[in-house]
Amino acid sequence: MIIHLKETVNTELAAQLAKQAQAQYFIREGQTILITSSSNKELPDFLREYTAEHFAMASDIQLASRTYQPATREVTINPGTSPAVATVEQAVKIGGSTNNTLMITGPCSIESWEQIVTCADMLKELGITTLRAGCFKPRTSPYSFQGLGMEGLKMLAQIREEYGFNIITEVRDATHVEAVIEHADIVQIGAKAMYDHGILRTCGEARKPVLLKRHFGATLQELVQAAEFVLSGGNEQVMLCERGIRTFETKTRFTLDLCGVSYLKEHINLPIILDTSHAMGYAYGVPDLTRACVAMGVDGLLIESHPNPKVAKSDAAQQLNLDEFRSLYRSVQSVAEAVGRKVV
Amino acid sequence: MIIHLKETVNTELAAQLAKQAQAQYFIREGQTILITSSSNKELPDFLREYTAEHFAMASDIQLASRTYQPATREVTINPGTSPAVATVEQAVKIGGSTNNTLMITGPCSIESWEQIVTCADMLKELGITTLRAGCFKPRTSPYSFQGLGMEGLKMLAQIREEYGFNIITEVRDATHVEAVIEHADIVQIGAKAMYDHGILRTCGEARKPVLLKRHFGATLQELVQAAEFVLSGGNEQVMLCERGIRTFETKTRFTLDLCGVSYLKEHINLPIILDTSHAMGYAYGVPDLTRACVAMGVDGLLIESHPNPKVAKSDAAQQLNLDEFRSLYRSVQSVAEAVGRKVV
Amino acid sequence: MIIHLKETVNTELAAQLAKQAQAQYFIREGQTILITSSSNKELPDFLREYTAEHFAMASDIQLASRTYQPATREVTINPGTSPAVATVEQAVKIGGSTNNTLMITGPCSIESWEQIVTCADMLKELGITTLRAGCFKPRTSPYSFQGLGMEGLKMLAQIREEYGFNIITEVRDATHVEAVIEHADIVQIGAKAMYDHGILRTCGEARKPVLLKRHFGATLQELVQAAEFVLSGGNEQVMLCERGIRTFETKTRFTLDLCGVSYLKEHINLPIILDTSHAMGYAYGVPDLTRACVAMGVDGLLIESHPNPKVAKSDAAQQLNLDEFRSLYRSVQSVAEAVGRKVV
Amino acid sequence: MIIHLKETVNTELAAQLAKQAQAQYFIREGQTILITSSSNKELPDFLREYTAEHFAMASDIQLASRTYQPATREVTINPGTSPAVATVEQAVKIGGSTNNTLMITGPCSIESWEQIVTCADMLKELGITTLRAGCFKPRTSPYSFQGLGMEGLKMLAQIREEYGFNIITEVRDATHVEAVIEHADIVQIGAKAMYDHGILRTCGEARKPVLLKRHFGATLQELVQAAEFVLSGGNEQVMLCERGIRTFETKTRFTLDLCGVSYLKEHINLPIILDTSHAMGYAYGVPDLTRACVAMGVDGLLIESHPNPKVAKSDAAQQLNLDEFRSLYRSVQSVAEAVGRKVV
Repeated sequence: MIIHLKETVNTELAAQLAKQAQAQYFIREGQTILITSSSNKELPDFLREYTAEHFAMASDIQLASRTYQPATREVTINPGTSPAVATVEQAVKIGGSTNNTLMITGPCSIESWEQIVTCADMLKELGITTLRAGCFKPRTSPYSFQGLGMEGLKMLAQIREEYGFNIITEVRDATHVEAVIEHADIVQIGAKAMYDHGILRTCGEARKPVLLKRHFGATLQELVQAAEFVLSGGNEQVMLCERGIRTFETKTRFTLDLCGVSYLKEHINLPIILDTSHAMGYAYGVPDLTRACVAMGVDGLLIESHPNPKVAKSDAAQQLNLDEFRSLYRSVQSVAEAVGRKVV
Repeated sequence: MIIHLKETVNTELAAQLAKQAQAQYFIREGQTILITSSSNKELPDFLREYTAEHFAMASDIQLASRTYQPATREVTINPGTSPAVATVEQAVKIGGSTNNTLMITGPCSIESWEQIVTCADMLKELGITTLRAGCFKPRTSPYSFQGLGMEGLKMLAQIREEYGFNIITEVRDATHVEAVIEHADIVQIGAKAMYDHGILRTCGEARKPVLLKRHFGATLQELVQAAEFVLSGGNEQVMLCERGIRTFETKTRFTLDLCGVSYLKEHINLPIILDTSHAMGYAYGVPDLTRACVAMGVDGLLIESHPNPKVAKSDAAQQLNLDEFRSLYRSVQSVAEAVGRKVV
Repeated sequence: MIIHLKETVNTELAAQLAKQAQAQYFIREGQTILITSSSNKELPDFLREYTAEHFAMASDIQLASRTYQPATREVTINPGTSPAVATVEQAVKIGGSTNNTLMITGPCSIESWEQIVTCADMLKELGITTLRAGCFKPRTSPYSFQGLGMEGLKMLAQIREEYGFNIITEVRDATHVEAVIEHADIVQIGAKAMYDHGILRTCGEARKPVLLKRHFGATLQELVQAAEFVLSGGNEQVMLCERGIRTFETKTRFTLDLCGVSYLKEHINLPIILDTSHAMGYAYGVPDLTRACVAMGVDGLLIESHPNPKVAKSDAAQQLNLDEFRSLYRSVQSVAEAVGRKVV
Repeated sequence: MIIHLKETVNTELAAQLAKQAQAQYFIREGQTILITSSSNKELPDFLREYTAEHFAMASDIQLASRTYQPATREVTINPGTSPAVATVEQAVKIGGSTNNTLMITGPCSIESWEQIVTCADMLKELGITTLRAGCFKPRTSPYSFQGLGMEGLKMLAQIREEYGFNIITEVRDATHVEAVIEHADIVQIGAKAMYDHGILRTCGEARKPVLLKRHFGATLQELVQAAEFVLSGGNEQVMLCERGIRTFETKTRFTLDLCGVSYLKEHINLPIILDTSHAMGYAYGVPDLTRACVAMGVDGLLIESHPNPKVAKSDAAQQLNLDEFRSLYRSVQSVAEAVGRKVV
């Protein structure tokens, strides 16, 4: 149950009521929102006098449900903190009534200063605002390349300074979540960290947009419930990312779950970003799949591109080279137009 | 291994050579094609003098492989046999160099003459040429509606006569495969019949296009190998249909495997048809998913529509009503245009 | 709903009532049993005067449900028709109150007379009564060995004559279902034929035990509903066979679903046979898995054994050689004893 | 590649060689072991003079592979640190040549002092040495019971003091990994934390046995590679735990992958523990499945039991009540005996 307390309830009292109700809570523009288990269908008596409005919910998908808040939430990225995007008015927005589809691209891993500059130059050339690159890689094996770590994060911060891009990079585990929150404009919670309460709760306290990737073994219900950890911490800027689930089919790396995206669009009020590179696992399929996602009217795209995929230290098979990316970028714009959307 | 015998080899000798080589074979425009297990990498000596050309293949995906025949096969539906489509020139074609995307629609099951006429009128209004409707329903339970059977098939034959549509209907099991081949313009091998050698071989002898649906538990390799049963019987008019695979996700009926479609487009020379209705299982997601498929550049679409889905005797939740279908139909045309294709 | 008509209702009237109720029906010891969709929760008025007893059911798992018939059904194999098993008293029984676990073994495919005799000799040596061997192989590729077909079936009939074994062999498709029913003592409906209404209905009319394999993509609900096709045709001798489902794990061929077996044991009144060979796909795992199944208290086992697995024409990797089988056979007996069962 | 340096190589030089080889390394009884990516098939020249022995490995399953170390590793739990288990000789051991099957039981969550004492009394009565109970619960929803946290951990420490049991409890995320390592005798890395490099590496530095649960979406390869993170950190006391994978089947909570267990037994040198409670999700199936696991010859069992499952705050459906557990415990002993093992 979601309970909007009256605005007259002060912070101290709110905290006490939350404790009594065994509720999570956060404050939105001066108003305290309590959330209790969805098994509660009746407002507790002791809350009655303090409650402005309450919503009994069908499942523990609560804050993210369109039953609670019908419109897709608007997410504003980097409002005026970067030299290139000087004011709130110029900030990139998705969701809400924007009809924007955000294009995010860059290499799987940042590997060197030279590599990331080559990527950044392409983004600049195409007018793309958001750069992705991994520093802390959630590799399956301890014996493969694990990412440049803090060194990579510092390079990204410098790119951000010089080019004014929004930077998105991945949190792999709790050892570096604070650093990523500090340096990135969008905090990516990687698929393998989707279940990590520690990271989710830390991101719930942050005030930066969070892109939450679906674990490849997670149901849609679990994905959205993971988002509830962040939302109920008071960070309402959450985007969901579908990146392929694990099925019996082995000709492709994962299976992009576009039926699931339809479900999310219908029932969930969070913007949806699609990562077709990880789903497919092979560059040849990325353009077609990306166009498919755009035609579905998703809120954003996460596409791996690399100056020379063949020598990439991770995910070599699935990254587009820069010319392939340029060609894809052109084509998605006409598909976006056909469905009344704009690629930003 | 695929072996093209010299055109001088007569039928009798060809049959004898096939037997000796333990090969499947068929005749294409006077030339006999033998196919042996792909484990054979060397042409047998006794075939050398009779062979025009041979192709060692990597797996038992042979005739369907782009390694053997790089271009997508062209499929011609109903060449001049229907009153409405009088000449070969007017026949509907997909694949090859056509850039056509065939729209197929109609109800899950034919339920009554009145129902199918209402559907047919809508197709006529929109200029759609191909009507689908099931007569023999592969229901999971013996206690639910099993379809109108032969009675339904006769109604479809009559609709074909009156409206000139191409008719596609499903073979559920061997008891009615001959009847469906006789009355339909496209023979649909249902997902649950995909593994049925008897049906596949019977269709291999037919001279009508076959739409082969992927079983929801079948790998892409198995799907294409099932097509090889038909192709190696000499029927080269085979279309593959992706209609969702079974995964752990239960919010949607199945999971449409568009990564798999990318694989097929890259490696397989057969046209690909997408059935978004069965994949999603809920009407609300069908328009978005269908637009996604069109943006991928698939060769055809199979969409369930029904005058009154609420009272449908099967698949009630997933069928579009006729207005929903009309609206979808308009939108797919602009998406098709954006990717250089034409909806036929 | 399952409806037991009064014994006074004659066949003609019963047929008419069934039609009016849109029911499947069959006659059990002079009493007609009607089964209608489980969505019917109230007995129709017109049936009231003819009904002895009726059972409203929760789902279309009806005749197979322990809600309807709590005890596991007893299945009697080959009651007195084979020279070696001369009387009904000596027939092999499983289910009911027998606590028997039936051991079935033999090669994946019958390949030659010599091969099958070697296998038969081992069965005789060990006192095993039931021999399996495939004649019609549901191979994925049209270019691999498809089985000896009718020739193999005739060899099995001869083995049956000479050794008095019960024979079990697989129906792959409708082209040979009658022949298998005629020659086998247990008709195996292969996994890939599990959804085939034609075969299921034909077996429903047969009066021989049927072993119904779960398709590797089928839910337990679907498996039992397939059994309902046979049961509602009047053949109540149905055994379910779990042989592995398809999952994301690729180190083994399939994933044996023993949780599913627990579900079946709890809710379903049909005996359960376990095929560990197909599930594992590798001989090394078969003994451990088979002991596991015995410890669960299943009603039977289906184990592939072959005189020389390395040269087997199908499933070479998963067949035990005869010494491995002998060793396994000894060990299962002590496990069976530990859980109060007897291997027959 | 695994490289055993000569014992003459001192720590400082070893560290420098490891760095040069881009290797993980640890010291075992004075000898440094380097591990580099399995893509290295040749020993680097600069290591030649310092190397005692080296092992080129087929995949990044290296230290855990039977190719490297054929015998199952022996794990010793709590060697002489608890009042009840006073000396190393009395410590519980599994793996190696012990033929022991360790029984671990207790409630899903510790809920109160009274509850855990009731459980502890039963363990004492039955002579069971190892108690499980969760303090930090990886719940899917932020709005359900999250465990007693540190308070629970302190209660477990007190139980350990009073009863002398070995305690196993779960690490959910990085916020409490140090506390769990301090207070538990076996550190359980929960399924949802299996991919967490931070936790894995911290456990690699610990000197307590680690039970690593397979994520329900993880392949066997990934599970063992996660174990490699711990092993290559120098903690060689790792047990793998299979607890069910996620498949399309929904009648049971997960699907216990015993084919996978066969694979692990054949190829991996780590002891294997089976959690049948989470796999099944329903108490009724736990006894049969547990007996199945024992018959397979696994090294341990993890069974949830609770004084009153109906009121349990988590996993209510799957916990055995104490009488059900007692009955199960008796029956597993005779199955263990039948396969030559001993329950400890």
